[in-house]
Order: sequence, then C-alpha cells, then structure tokens
Amino acid sequence: MTAATPHPAALIALDWGTSSLRAYRMAAGGEILDTRHLPWGIMRLPTPPGDGAAPPAAASGFELAFEQACGDWLRATPGLPVIACGMVGSAQGWAEAAYLDIPVDLRAIGARLTPVDTRRGAILRIIPGLLQRQGLPNVIRGEETQVVGAVDSQADAAEDLLVGLPGTHCKWVRVRDGRIVEFDTFMTGEVYAALRAHTILGRTMADAASADDAAFEQGLGVAGSEQGRGGVLSTIFSTRALGLTGQLAPTAQPDYLSGLLIGHEVCALRALLDARGMPSRIVLCGDEALCRRYARALPRFGLATPGLAAQAAERGLWRLAVSAGLV
Amino acid sequence: MTAATPHPAALIALDWGTSSLRAYRMAAGGEILDTRHLPWGIMRLPTPPGDGAAPPAAASGFELAFEQACGDWLRATPGLPVIACGMVGSAQGWAEAAYLDIPVDLRAIGARLTPVDTRRGAILRIIPGLLQRQGLPNVIRGEETQVVGAVDSQADAAEDLLVGLPGTHCKWVRVRDGRIVEFDTFMTGEVYAALRAHTILGRTMADAASADDAAFEQGLGVAGSEQGRGGVLSTIFSTRALGLTGQLAPTAQPDYLSGLLIGHEVCALRALLDARGMPSRIVLCGDEALCRRYARALPRFGLATPGLAAQAAERGLWRLAVSAGLV
Repeated sequence: MTAATPHPAALIALDWGTSSLRAYRMAAGGEILDTRHLPWGIMRLPTPPGDGAAPPAAASGFELAFEQACGDWLRATPGLPVIACGMVGSAQGWAEAAYLDIPVDLRAIGARLTPVDTRRGAILRIIPGLLQRQGLPNVIRGEETQVVGAVDSQADAAEDLLVGLPGTHCKWVRVRDGRIVEFDTFMTGEVYAALRAHTILGRTMADAASADDAAFEQGLGVAGSEQGRGGVLSTIFSTRALGLTGQLAPTAQPDYLSGLLIGHEVCALRALLDARGMPSRIVLCGDEALCRRYARALPRFGLATPGLAAQAAERGLWRLAVSAGLV
Repeated sequence: MTAATPHPAALIALDWGTSSLRAYRMAAGGEILDTRHLPWGIMRLPTPPGDGAAPPAAASGFELAFEQACGDWLRATPGLPVIACGMVGSAQGWAEAAYLDIPVDLRAIGARLTPVDTRRGAILRIIPGLLQRQGLPNVIRGEETQVVGAVDSQADAAEDLLVGLPGTHCKWVRVRDGRIVEFDTFMTGEVYAALRAHTILGRTMADAASADDAAFEQGLGVAGSEQGRGGVLSTIFSTRALGLTGQLAPTAQPDYLSGLLIGHEVCALRALLDARGMPSRIVLCGDEALCRRYARALPRFGLATPGLAAQAAERGLWRLAVSAGLV
C-alpha cells in the first residue's frame, strides 16, 4: 500500500472520541489517502499485555491504540505531523487540552494545540474543546473541529451560520463572521438510548426491520401539537399508551419515540432562535441517516431546510493543521 | 393480636403495585387496624417451593404473596371482603381489570370490580384502571383509588380539583363535580432514575448526606428561566457543565437535576392549565418528601400552594369498597 501511494503523506489526523477512533492519512491539500476505523474510544482502550507483576501505565492503552492507528504510517514517513480532536483531550483522555473560551475565531483554535510526547517519538497535538461561560455553562469537545470543516465547505464563510451536529449529544453551534459565538447541547441521543433500554417504554418495543418513517413523522407531529405543550416528560408516555390501546405497533414505537424527542428538541431550538434571531443558513454534519431525520424535522418547526456538510471532521482536522502551521 | 383487636375487622384492602404490596385490615368506618408492607410487587413475587418436576403455576406467586399479606386475617375472620388496586389488575397482574373510560364518576369505579377466586376461597376484587381516549391516549392504574381518597378528604368534593400524584410516573388528575374528567402523565421519576444511573450525568454525581434544598431550588430556577426555553433535553446537560466548571459540587448535582426535571414538569403543567383553565384547588398525595418538592415548585410557576392528602390510597380503597357494597 505505502509504496503504491500516489501522493506523499503530509498529515496524520485522528478523530478520537469516547467510543471509537478514526485515523486519516492525508496528502498535501487535505486529500485522504487512507482511513482506519478502530474501536479504541477513550473509554474502551486496548489492554497492553502485562507481565502480571505491575499494572500497565495509565498511558499504555492510549499508546497501544495510537500504534495500531498510525504506527506503520509513521514508520513509512518519519516526522509526519499528527493532530487529534475529541475526547482524547478531555480530563479522562490522554492529556487534557484546556477549553478555549468563546467567542473564538475558528482559525485561532489551531493555534492552541496541546502536545503529547508519544513513546515512538512522534508528537500528538490535541485540539482544545470550547467553553461557553455566559448563561448556563456549556462545553464541546470534538465538534469544534467539525464546525471548522463545515464552515470550510460553505461558499461564503462570512455569513451567519447555524451548524447542527446530531448524535449522542446534539450540538447546535452558531458561527458569525468566522467566529463561534454561541452553542447549545441537547442530550437527545443519550436520553433516547436510556429511555429505550432502562425505562418501561422499552418493554413494549420491538426492533423494526427498517426505519418506520410514518411513526417518526407521527412523533414529530405530536411534539409540535397542542399536546406537545406538556413537554417531553409527558408526551413520551404516549409511546406506551398508544401501544396499550393498540394504536402503535411494537415495531413502530422506537421511531415514534425518536420523532417525539427530535421534535421536542427542534421545537425548543426554534424558541431559542426566535429570541436570538434566525441564522441565514443551517448546515448539518454527522451520521447521514440521523441528519436526514433532523432535515425532516427542521421545516416542520418553521426552520430552513438545512444543507449537509460531508466529511466535516476530516476537513476540520486538515484546516486546523494548516492554521497551526503543521502542514 | 387478633384477640386484642378492639373493633371487628370489616375489610381487607390491598394496594398492590409493581414493586411492593401494602395490606390493610380495616374496621367498619374505615379505621385501620393493621398495616403490612411486603416487597411482593407484581414484578417481584415470591417463588413457591417446587418439586423440581413441574414449573409452578403462573398464579402461584400471587397466591403466595396474597397468603402472606392476609392469610391469617382471613383465617381469623372468614368471609371478610378483599379489595385491591394497582398493577395487580394489569395485563401482567393476577387478572386483568379492564380500563374504564373517562369521564367517570368516582363512585362508579367501585361498581366495576373484577373478581378473582383465590385458592383459599376468598374472592379478591380488583379496582379497574382508567383510560383517557381523547387526544393522546393515557392510562392510570392505582392512582384512581388515591384520587378517590384525596377527594374524600376534601371539605367540598364538588369543586374543581387537581390531584397531583408524584412518583415514578407523576399523574395530574382533574376532578370536577365528583367526576374524573382528564389526566396527564409525566415520567419524571423514572426519567430521573434513568438519567442518573444510565447516562453521563450520573458519572460526576455523588450521594449527598441530606437533601440539598439550594441545589433543588437552583434547578427549579433554571427550568423557569430564559434558558429553560431550551427544554429539558437541553438544560439537563448543565448538570455536567456546571460540574466541569467547578460551579456545582458532585453532591449537589442529584438535587439540581431533580429541580430541573420537576421544574420543567410544573412549567409544562402550567402551560396546559393556562389552556384548560385553572382548578380551584390543588392537592398532592404520595411520598411526603417528594410532595414537599412539588409543593415548593408549584408556586414558583404561578400555581397555587397545594394541600396535602394523607393516606389517600387507604381512604380510597375503603370508599370504593363502600360504593361497591362490600362493606
């Protein structure tokens, strides 16, 4: 593979989160030469073989994952710069990359990397997360890099953009004139998983063979209806009650609940934007199927049909490596 | 004990829910002679001793729990009527007591009991749950009996009353002129438990030696603030973010989260009541510490300071036995 690479490698970029690690080898210009997807999120690192006498050093799991992600790439091109974003820079990560306060210029983020000396000599440079102090405090870590990538993919970066990042914790990040000025967190994905696995709602559910779009739309509709004024703590019980009364099949209940939660999220987002002013454009990035759900929800609550920014993390990692002078 | 009972027993009443079973022996007039609290909720029944050859019959766990709850009382007073409310009448219970549609007259509930023949010859009569079909369907089972008891404890049963029943699923039941006309369910207690045990919010929490009232009030305040417009899926993340920024101690986080959830519930309840019209009085029944939390929350969201109805289940069981002609 290495010998056949048409362009020389210029950067190794890691998107290193809680549950997985994505590694990219990039050529000059940001072209992706190789991609690896490893299960070594920071909460499930590989266990180094021990001699049984002493526990392995705390960093050993990180070292081992790092070696598997890009050891051969570094051997093939010694001295290649390495940049990383995500929970690897959290207090539970390899090294803590202190939060930057917002508002912050997107380019300034690349100037504040935290270096980590790895056992094989390479320096891993970790991108900081962001901290919002005004009002209720809020934090992001990893999404700032996707936002950089999403903005980079827009024709006009100077506009007033809202970047949505659906997932375990859905983040909505406001970017004005190239600066991150505000963001919100909705724990929609994690709450959905907890409700399904650990409350009575999951007991009447069954897995569907494919996504049930009608049930999802039904959930969106309820969240936006008069009954939706009871809020998410109330409407979620209808998942069970509709099942008990034979109006919602067990296989339809998961997507109905998903529609309820995403509907309540987008309804609340709309209320926040009404108070703050509408962005000129909305862009989503992340898992494609999940982005499609949000893209269906936004117009139902009077928000603009969003654009989609593909490969935002890879693009952001490259862009920040450029502004850091690594490439 | 039996010989020393000053008044003869007139009724055995069981409050038989998902996780526990309360048994009462009552004298004429509803005076409580004895109370038992057993762990035999319908989801954790005792296991009858088997001979290993055949599995015990499905009803055996119910029979065994029933025997432990009141077998000696029935031996002492053969022919004593037995009434029960709660999940014992659900599809997963001893026998399904079909839901009654609302609106329903409180006295009519006692006319629709489901009889179960027990092995020892006594007939257990199960009170039906209630079903609300208009709008989103909704169900209660067990709370209808508490509502009967709560209304019975009011000086004027003819007024427009809102009965709140905090718990795993908090129910708010509207009673006008002695009829249950509407109710709402909020899964607040169960969501709190799931968030604490099964999401990232629990990871930074620590148990407090005693309730942290200030943290609870802080949570209520956030739910009612401008930031509360982001809704509960959003504000709950501040539990973590306030912790990360050193503004909320690990021991304060559980009660802060409790305040957020109850605050969002009561805020939504207020919105529903604004649309439906305010009740002339609000009464709470159930766990005393939890009722106190709701009693603090209601006035913060512009609702009346509630009254407290003690022993609502016992009182309701007696009242329904009377209207059923059992006593």
